[in-house]
Amino acid sequence: MASSLLTRQLAISLQQNLRLAAPGSRYVSKTATKTVSEFEYDAPSMKTAVPGPNTNHLQLYLSLGLQNVGAIHFFCNYEESRGNYLVDVDGNRMLDVYTQISSIPIGYNHPALIKVMTNPNNVSAFVNRPALGILPPENFPEKLFESLLSIAPSGMNRVQTMACGSCSNENAFKSMFIWYRNKERGYASPSEQEVGTCMINQSPGCPDLSILSFMGAFHGRTMGCLATTHSKAIHKLDIPSFDWPIAPFPKLQYPLEEFVRENAQEEARCLEEVEDLIVKWRQKGKPVAGIVIEPIQAEGGDNHASPDFFIKLRNIARKHGCAFHVDEVQTGGGTTGKFWAHEHWGLDDPADIVSFSKKLLTGGYYHRDELQPDKPYRIFNTWMGDPSKNLFLSEVLNVIRRENLLEEVTRSGKALLQGLYSLQTQYPHILSRARGQGTFCAIDACSDATRDSIMLKARNKGLFMGSCGEKTIRFRPALVFKEYHVHQLLNILNDILAEHK
Amino acid sequence: MASSLLTRQLAISLQQNLRLAAPGSRYVSKTATKTVSEFEYDAPSMKTAVPGPNTNHLQLYLSLGLQNVGAIHFFCNYEESRGNYLVDVDGNRMLDVYTQISSIPIGYNHPALIKVMTNPNNVSAFVNRPALGILPPENFPEKLFESLLSIAPSGMNRVQTMACGSCSNENAFKSMFIWYRNKERGYASPSEQEVGTCMINQSPGCPDLSILSFMGAFHGRTMGCLATTHSKAIHKLDIPSFDWPIAPFPKLQYPLEEFVRENAQEEARCLEEVEDLIVKWRQKGKPVAGIVIEPIQAEGGDNHASPDFFIKLRNIARKHGCAFHVDEVQTGGGTTGKFWAHEHWGLDDPADIVSFSKKLLTGGYYHRDELQPDKPYRIFNTWMGDPSKNLFLSEVLNVIRRENLLEEVTRSGKALLQGLYSLQTQYPHILSRARGQGTFCAIDACSDATRDSIMLKARNKGLFMGSCGEKTIRFRPALVFKEYHVHQLLNILNDILAEHK
Repeated sequence: MASSLLTRQLAISLQQNLRLAAPGSRYVSKTATKTVSEFEYDAPSMKTAVPGPNTNHLQLYLSLGLQNVGAIHFFCNYEESRGNYLVDVDGNRMLDVYTQISSIPIGYNHPALIKVMTNPNNVSAFVNRPALGILPPENFPEKLFESLLSIAPSGMNRVQTMACGSCSNENAFKSMFIWYRNKERGYASPSEQEVGTCMINQSPGCPDLSILSFMGAFHGRTMGCLATTHSKAIHKLDIPSFDWPIAPFPKLQYPLEEFVRENAQEEARCLEEVEDLIVKWRQKGKPVAGIVIEPIQAEGGDNHASPDFFIKLRNIARKHGCAFHVDEVQTGGGTTGKFWAHEHWGLDDPADIVSFSKKLLTGGYYHRDELQPDKPYRIFNTWMGDPSKNLFLSEVLNVIRRENLLEEVTRSGKALLQGLYSLQTQYPHILSRARGQGTFCAIDACSDATRDSIMLKARNKGLFMGSCGEKTIRFRPALVFKEYHVHQLLNILNDILAEHK
Repeated sequence: MASSLLTRQLAISLQQNLRLAAPGSRYVSKTATKTVSEFEYDAPSMKTAVPGPNTNHLQLYLSLGLQNVGAIHFFCNYEESRGNYLVDVDGNRMLDVYTQISSIPIGYNHPALIKVMTNPNNVSAFVNRPALGILPPENFPEKLFESLLSIAPSGMNRVQTMACGSCSNENAFKSMFIWYRNKERGYASPSEQEVGTCMINQSPGCPDLSILSFMGAFHGRTMGCLATTHSKAIHKLDIPSFDWPIAPFPKLQYPLEEFVRENAQEEARCLEEVEDLIVKWRQKGKPVAGIVIEPIQAEGGDNHASPDFFIKLRNIARKHGCAFHVDEVQTGGGTTGKFWAHEHWGLDDPADIVSFSKKLLTGGYYHRDELQPDKPYRIFNTWMGDPSKNLFLSEVLNVIRRENLLEEVTRSGKALLQGLYSLQTQYPHILSRARGQGTFCAIDACSDATRDSIMLKARNKGLFMGSCGEKTIRFRPALVFKEYHVHQLLNILNDILAEHK
């Protein structure tokens, strides 16, 4: 490579810098610990502005070889990170309430997960990644029952692991299409014409079916998922798509309790539109095989809807013969105070498919028996997940149960939401629309520029948050986020808002 | 769950069975070993027919909770597997020349990979999976240069890791679409109309662009990839698709050296069709943004083409302004005797994009600078790969270099192909069309039933092979497959063929 000299020089100068960066004090118990407070730090600690000089060096180095480095916030020292605190390569220690885009379930370097890694019985699961669909390891059924099937949503008997959220949704969509066409052909074998035309992408073998999604939704970025994602133009621009129906998602007023009547009207309007679209697309010759929805629209701006809305939507799906797919990739795993956000709806029988990833460490989806494909190899790929992630997940679930983390999330979430209400009362010209379930909380700034400015200032004071929608700050802490972390967060935010011009 | 009693009973009876299954003798050095012969077994050893009773038990158990168990060959004891030998849960030890659908680079439980796992410095990389696109670990650039960038194909300066083969190809396609539209709009900012229409899946924001693929191709099973996959109906039936052009892939006669003139004619016919399709789809208003092709069509039946064909195809792509994407998901990683199969074409400047996965342990794709998206977040997802896989890959590359495994593959591949030629000469009524590059070899049976029968008999004698196409046996051994393994394989095949009615 022409750039190898520069690369080498950068690497050398970087190593020198890193040696100088002190990691910051921390409390690490040498013996096995049970709770997050025994092994994590007690507060943020900042040494430089973020990004600091070491991040800048590394970013330049990486820019020589990576597709794009423009989205990098900072480089991390994961070895030194603990619990709710993320340490960067400049020795800055931040309270992390974004947690790798909501994908770290029980904090950094949890002792229970380190034990999984260092257990000699587990080595083989990491070193020999199997083609799970054809040659599963001996302990795969046991680990599946211990982990994913032990937390299966009500009415869901079956699961399929996948490697990531997009693959989970892509394959969930495929299951719905297969189910829908099997119903249409009366569970008979496909015709010769279907078998022939599918090989060349033509109908009837590749039928003109559709998935109904919602404005503001995010279901992933592979091309099937992307056709149901409508949160930001940057995700979709220049990528060919499908002519599938897109319904409005309710634009509710917060706090929900204070706008019950207005919100119910808005939800009714959206549900009416859903039924109209289903009829219209059927008439167009592109029937809706499935409806996909998030319990809380996350990337789209933390948009909530009422249990009543989802119950009625589920009934519309049933009435029109569409499968009902709840995408819990971001909401699943305990962050709303229940393991699955859709459990808040109070339905025994809520969905045909529930997909997950992120905090579950493995991707995948649950489905009802009816959604089981009629033949093997219809839903298939080389890896079909990764059993080493199931080992970690089993242990995460143990920790959640042992430490009653769902109760903890409910408690911390209440404190967080109350704190956000106070802040928006105190700073009504800056903040509004505080909302949340569990610790899955958000608040809007008065503009995107103000939002971005608050977030950067907070980062420099040791609070790392995420954004979503147009001007929303989203909170996505790990399940080990306690009330005293809430107070740290609120204190930092308050300081910034008090100084805000 | 209603089935929990059955589950428990199965689990108990299974544990009792497993205690009885002796693992089989093996040679395991207690100290660090350098070569495969020091730590692996010396031959297959069979105790039951395959699948044996323990597999049958486990399959029943798993069928209670998994989407589908119909594709399972047998359950594996990965702890006891070594090098080229895969051990099942009934104590059967097989010479594995399918290697988890061609995804195990240096055999099972290679000591070098176990060392990666047990190195305390690496624990954090496994326990804290980062959102690589925004918060990479400190050593990410270094590991990327040490691993993927050290084996970058000629002309490829940039890489992006992804979690699997399908995600790699989906994002490679997206890069080609973005590149194509940026050219079309003269690198200006997108119009308001484009930004608005893309949010609702309509053109011009979601343009009517296409990817040209080939009959018999396999590029994955997510919906974008699936529109370019044309190997088997079971992959595609009932899934909506795109109206994209599909060219014939040359149907060559083997051995290639003996049919040079006929094959050149066939390749010319296919190339002519490619150009016709590009023109036709442009006229249809769905211009071809990219051409995607495998150096050897794998799932489609191990179909080869000459370097001349690929060179001319590359020139056609350039002439018509289409990106040229070489999908090395199955061919990459050394199995053809070069690290990338397309290096056999003898071009300095072969492609715009090269995608990979499987033996590389991480998915991803290389691309030229021109294919770099103009903004961050255009190619993005939560995980963007998995740095723990990069650690393993670095070590795999060390082993390949230290043990000269590419030379070994060339040597073993030659012996394997010679052996297959002998077998087809000896059994011309059963076998034909032996072909291969390195150990990436295949041979056709006279029918699919005969092929399947040979494969089952071989499995019961301790040889585990894969199938592809209609009646093809494919050989996909690991890179540690030596000449003495070739002889074991040929002896078992010869025994079966001699008995074959």
